[in-house]
Amino acid sequence: MQKSRGAERIAGLKSSAIRDILKITSRPEVISFAGGLPAPELFPLQEIADAAQNVLLKYGSSALQYSITEGLIPLREKIAKILDPDAKRLNIENILITQGSQQGLDLISKLFIDKGDMVFTETPSYLGALQSFQLFQADIIAIPSDEKGIRINKLLERLKEQKPKLIYLMPNFQNPSGTSLSMERRLKLIEIIKSHDLMLVEDDPYGELIFEGEKLPSLYNLGRSKNFIYMGSFSKTIAPGLRVAYVAGDKEIIQKLAVIKQGTDLHTNTFGQFIVNEYLENGNYYEHINQIRQTYKIRRDYMLSAIDRYSPKSVTWNRPAGGMFLWVNLPEGMDAQKILLRCLENDVAFVPGQEFFPDSSGKNTIRLNFSNANPENIEEGIRRIGEVLKAQI
Amino acid sequence: MQKSRGAERIAGLKSSAIRDILKITSRPEVISFAGGLPAPELFPLQEIADAAQNVLLKYGSSALQYSITEGLIPLREKIAKILDPDAKRLNIENILITQGSQQGLDLISKLFIDKGDMVFTETPSYLGALQSFQLFQADIIAIPSDEKGIRINKLLERLKEQKPKLIYLMPNFQNPSGTSLSMERRLKLIEIIKSHDLMLVEDDPYGELIFEGEKLPSLYNLGRSKNFIYMGSFSKTIAPGLRVAYVAGDKEIIQKLAVIKQGTDLHTNTFGQFIVNEYLENGNYYEHINQIRQTYKIRRDYMLSAIDRYSPKSVTWNRPAGGMFLWVNLPEGMDAQKILLRCLENDVAFVPGQEFFPDSSGKNTIRLNFSNANPENIEEGIRRIGEVLKAQI
Repeated sequence: MQKSRGAERIAGLKSSAIRDILKITSRPEVISFAGGLPAPELFPLQEIADAAQNVLLKYGSSALQYSITEGLIPLREKIAKILDPDAKRLNIENILITQGSQQGLDLISKLFIDKGDMVFTETPSYLGALQSFQLFQADIIAIPSDEKGIRINKLLERLKEQKPKLIYLMPNFQNPSGTSLSMERRLKLIEIIKSHDLMLVEDDPYGELIFEGEKLPSLYNLGRSKNFIYMGSFSKTIAPGLRVAYVAGDKEIIQKLAVIKQGTDLHTNTFGQFIVNEYLENGNYYEHINQIRQTYKIRRDYMLSAIDRYSPKSVTWNRPAGGMFLWVNLPEGMDAQKILLRCLENDVAFVPGQEFFPDSSGKNTIRLNFSNANPENIEEGIRRIGEVLKAQI
Repeated sequence: MQKSRGAERIAGLKSSAIRDILKITSRPEVISFAGGLPAPELFPLQEIADAAQNVLLKYGSSALQYSITEGLIPLREKIAKILDPDAKRLNIENILITQGSQQGLDLISKLFIDKGDMVFTETPSYLGALQSFQLFQADIIAIPSDEKGIRINKLLERLKEQKPKLIYLMPNFQNPSGTSLSMERRLKLIEIIKSHDLMLVEDDPYGELIFEGEKLPSLYNLGRSKNFIYMGSFSKTIAPGLRVAYVAGDKEIIQKLAVIKQGTDLHTNTFGQFIVNEYLENGNYYEHINQIRQTYKIRRDYMLSAIDRYSPKSVTWNRPAGGMFLWVNLPEGMDAQKILLRCLENDVAFVPGQEFFPDSSGKNTIRLNFSNANPENIEEGIRRIGEVLKAQI
């Protein structure tokens, strides 16, 4: 294809480095902490098989027919109740079912972003979100963040100069760093969003995967205004291959997103929506989430213990209270991409953290996934990474 | 939401009139020829239920896990063979699985269209395509068409002045008019596309639903060059609620579309892809298509007969050789939207053809869907429309 034929937005388009790493790591001998996959052995396989059969018995062909763009009504009712148990504030008009949260990002980008518009993100931030905003030619501004999330003072400084179209955050056990936004900062952020009349996009795929401490309220539930959009997903709590997630927000915004979704893919797959709805109705959703929490906590602990034993002293890491990822800082000046090449020679993989920094900083950081690795692989893989690091430091 | 907050692309965004009509026609007493639904009683319900179970037994959690953006490899192999039975020209690298063909349009728009770029379409044209192009702020140019498809001379005239980014066509039993592009025009069009180095997007959801005559080769198979993109779907031959369709084209284009799809929704729902793949492997796909053909042909014939008996003489209509739609011309000067209001009072619905004209012409035309109505409803519904027309003419 001639270069000139493509749209301007794809000029800098490239496949994500993660994608390329994942291709290499599909060799069976590679121990990979690179992916972002939930543990498949925890999928409620039998319950989903039962749900699929029940749905076809109960609803017949309507579970396989075209369906409304907004999404299956009983499923939206259940989501409204999950987010707002008293069901006084939210109803189905606040909920749009999406084809995974990645589609939520696409639709939100379509609704809000013109070429050159600014989007503020925490640093590091979810790569898929950066890709989505970039496809709509947004100007992504990285606001410095620390172990308590986005730094409020840095945000305020920036807001003196610029007003973004969106602020995008993953406040719980974020991808890639595993950190969460503290309660104190949540409250400050709510105030700032309202006083500056900003639009906050809260992406929360990992919120349910909490291992310790108290679950913090969402910005959406704290903020309770048109300035907040929330994205949730069943990809990490049921199964990602069904591609069922949702956006919650002000009715008027949801309505516009639905019209955009109509032109984007008509509607989310009907069968998957029926299956998730059936599972929420008759499965053991919350028990199942507890099982995921326990397993992931064990894996995180294995990984923390292995890193502690095998890493050089100049390496530091965090201790995420939930989610699927753990974050490692190499000594200043080290390049995680070079370390990765050595590690791949030793059949172990991770994602260099730089990928997740809109400003290409973070060269000396590493993302490790612990949800999709068993204890033996964690032990052996972290040992191999430790050897490579020791040889380099 | 404040107007100023949305992106420019949504300034003129509105829900389609069809969508609004469909809301009214969900009243059970309304006989509706408005929708574009395949007949749900023909869905291979038991085979899909079996496929869903087999897939989970055979492939376990991988049928529910995240999967590659390009789509399930064995499914792409099967599609390559369907399009190119000798499998000499096409392979999996030519195929991208999409979340319905509507997503194919979205991805193609993202790849090619900058604000203000021109897209040529036949007239009338598929509303969902117009919506997709409009979301990317394309300038849609309607090329006059007749009962043999797009008019080649009119296209050539236009090409003297302007070069479009894309030409979009539905060559087989198109939505809305049911007409097909003649073989003679296909050959001429291929020549024009190549000599002008244009990009043709061929949307073919109805090609398999042929009742009479010979199946014509696709422009993609005739053209065999980088200038042709083909979109196919299982929505009308298996079930639309699985949302499994595909784009076929040059490897380089497919690769770029896959990178775009990654940022758009990561991948098409895994379970649906596995089910379609299983059904193609073990179901009676071609027998099933034959059954759909026979049933739809009967419904078309019922509708033709009823229109013949109940319509005023000044009304004319076509006789589509396949697909799901039939096209009616009212006398010049009549407004189908006004007729629709009267018809709704009499509990019968259709879509005014004007919706499908990018230039808002076609005020006196009507789209009738015959695939999703039983003979009694066809008889009674067409009788009611005929009464309204007789009172108006």
